Amino acid sequence: MHENKINKNFAENLAEKILSRDKLSLSKAITLIESTKTEHQKIARKLLNLLIPYSGKSIRIGITGSPGVGKSTFIDSFADYLSGLGRKIAILAIDPSSTKSKGSILGDKTRMQKIANNPNVFIRPSPSRGSSGGIANRTRETILLCEAFGFDTIIVETVGVGQSEVLVRTIVDFFLLLLQPGGGDELQGLKKGSVEIADLIVINKADGENTNLAEVTKNAYSLAIHYLQPATDGWETKVVTASAMKMTGISEIWDIIKEFEQKTKESGIFEKRREEQNLDWFYVLLENNLKALFFENPHIKKKLQSFEKKIKDGKIIPSEASDKIIDFFIKFSLNERI
Amino acid sequence: MHENKINKNFAENLAEKILSRDKLSLSKAITLIESTKTEHQKIARKLLNLLIPYSGKSIRIGITGSPGVGKSTFIDSFADYLSGLGRKIAILAIDPSSTKSKGSILGDKTRMQKIANNPNVFIRPSPSRGSSGGIANRTRETILLCEAFGFDTIIVETVGVGQSEVLVRTIVDFFLLLLQPGGGDELQGLKKGSVEIADLIVINKADGENTNLAEVTKNAYSLAIHYLQPATDGWETKVVTASAMKMTGISEIWDIIKEFEQKTKESGIFEKRREEQNLDWFYVLLENNLKALFFENPHIKKKLQSFEKKIKDGKIIPSEASDKIIDFFIKFSLNERI
Repeated sequence: MHENKINKNFAENLAEKILSRDKLSLSKAITLIESTKTEHQKIARKLLNLLIPYSGKSIRIGITGSPGVGKSTFIDSFADYLSGLGRKIAILAIDPSSTKSKGSILGDKTRMQKIANNPNVFIRPSPSRGSSGGIANRTRETILLCEAFGFDTIIVETVGVGQSEVLVRTIVDFFLLLLQPGGGDELQGLKKGSVEIADLIVINKADGENTNLAEVTKNAYSLAIHYLQPATDGWETKVVTASAMKMTGISEIWDIIKEFEQKTKESGIFEKRREEQNLDWFYVLLENNLKALFFENPHIKKKLQSFEKKIKDGKIIPSEASDKIIDFFIKFSLNERI
Repeated sequence: MHENKINKNFAENLAEKILSRDKLSLSKAITLIESTKTEHQKIARKLLNLLIPYSGKSIRIGITGSPGVGKSTFIDSFADYLSGLGRKIAILAIDPSSTKSKGSILGDKTRMQKIANNPNVFIRPSPSRGSSGGIANRTRETILLCEAFGFDTIIVETVGVGQSEVLVRTIVDFFLLLLQPGGGDELQGLKKGSVEIADLIVINKADGENTNLAEVTKNAYSLAIHYLQPATDGWETKVVTASAMKMTGISEIWDIIKEFEQKTKESGIFEKRREEQNLDWFYVLLENNLKALFFENPHIKKKLQSFEKKIKDGKIIPSEASDKIIDFFIKFSLNERI
């Protein structure tokens, strides 16, 4: 992104190009969103506010699964199938682990050969910088851009690292957990809580000599989920088998997602969840910004240093120190711009 | 606490009485700390600042264990033994579950018959109100009071509910996990992470026909902890057997705690942990107070309502809304007292 390209109408022009389905402009806009430069962030905000009226008209699907369950192959087959139905699919990734490794999932498109060159499919790897919370926020904004562009199916992929699954659950309508045949949660490398947040569990690799084991695994999980609260009000979590490699079970999965969309839209749960997700997003940002305003203020920083010393020396109890700093913040902001 | 008793020198008088070891005054002071009334809180702060120079000279021991492992009997025998050595013991409880049930652990002193009427032992049940974070903060302040009073051994008891174990770990020097013979983590009703934060694991009920099983369990945990990071730098987590009922193993446990205290004081880890705990306490309070200052301001509340509506109606993206509220907060605090 060259600075000279950023003129007064930059956001307006970019918005127009995105609405006219220019993929290069979409990629540029996502790069702006992912940028940490204040100037870029300002344009990104302007762009998002221009595009928000055109967003929201998609089904947002989260897909998670441990390494080895065939996630890439599944997404390849699933998106290929959806494209055949005339749908337009954006695939985004959230991978907090890439922060450290500098790698990122979805980076290797060679593992998605069916869709790699499909004009109806857009693939964007995980941002490689930032906290998982920060990555989630940027993914939320990227979803809005993709919807404004015209993608009607958003897939958010995540590996089950740290809190990424729970984060993805807070930004999608439907959550799909991919497993492989055999073993319990531990053998599957499943974190506690993964099953609880799923709307659909897919036992992948149900082909060849694995076919029977996949059925056994499916039945075991079907039994298990009866003891759990459903992830979505009014929707009973389903368990099915599939083979992404043999392309079996894929259409059934899509039928289930459509059934879910229809039911939750009729009951109002769909809209209610999106509203709640937006409000949660708002409040998380608000808290972060408030803390930044306070803790990054140089005068507060100085006070904190001196109080830290007093606490270390046992001259003041932390509760008293906390009250004094807040008092200072209030009085200070009366006299000076912070 | 009658209002007419709260005069100008109330905190000073109370501090004096606590320093002269008046137990009724200690109980009164703890009640002030647990009170939610602003006036009481002010006196409590004053009192704490008067007493902080006299605090800190104890060993703070956290004890956790699932229901059924014999925690009450163990604490009864342990404190009785320590009292025999001439130590003065305060036993405090953290039980977030009591918020709901209105009950509280340690409420039933009949289960601690050895120490119930021992003048060298002070027992205080868990506060029955507040979040677990709030309870932890009040327990921190109560520890300071008990130390100023002259207790040289503070025991903080918790059941392994929610985050209570992790909270207790952040306010004690030494953490003791009580288990019973037999079974793995699941059979013990152990939460993941309980073993990781322990400095000592005690297999209780090592008596009668359980003696052998207790040894087996001890060996299993001894093996397991080799794969874990120690809870305290420079200290290898130990595993021992004991019988609180038969009073066996108790003196060995105390020897281990004394060894821990000596080693960590020599290496500086003891003091370093207390400093870090105080700073953590400070920053947790600071964040809570900052959020209260912001979110409980009536003008901010009004703004939040209107922005919530705009977000629901899709008229603004949450990131933009968050920025606008923060801007308002800054400008507002320039003109008016918040």
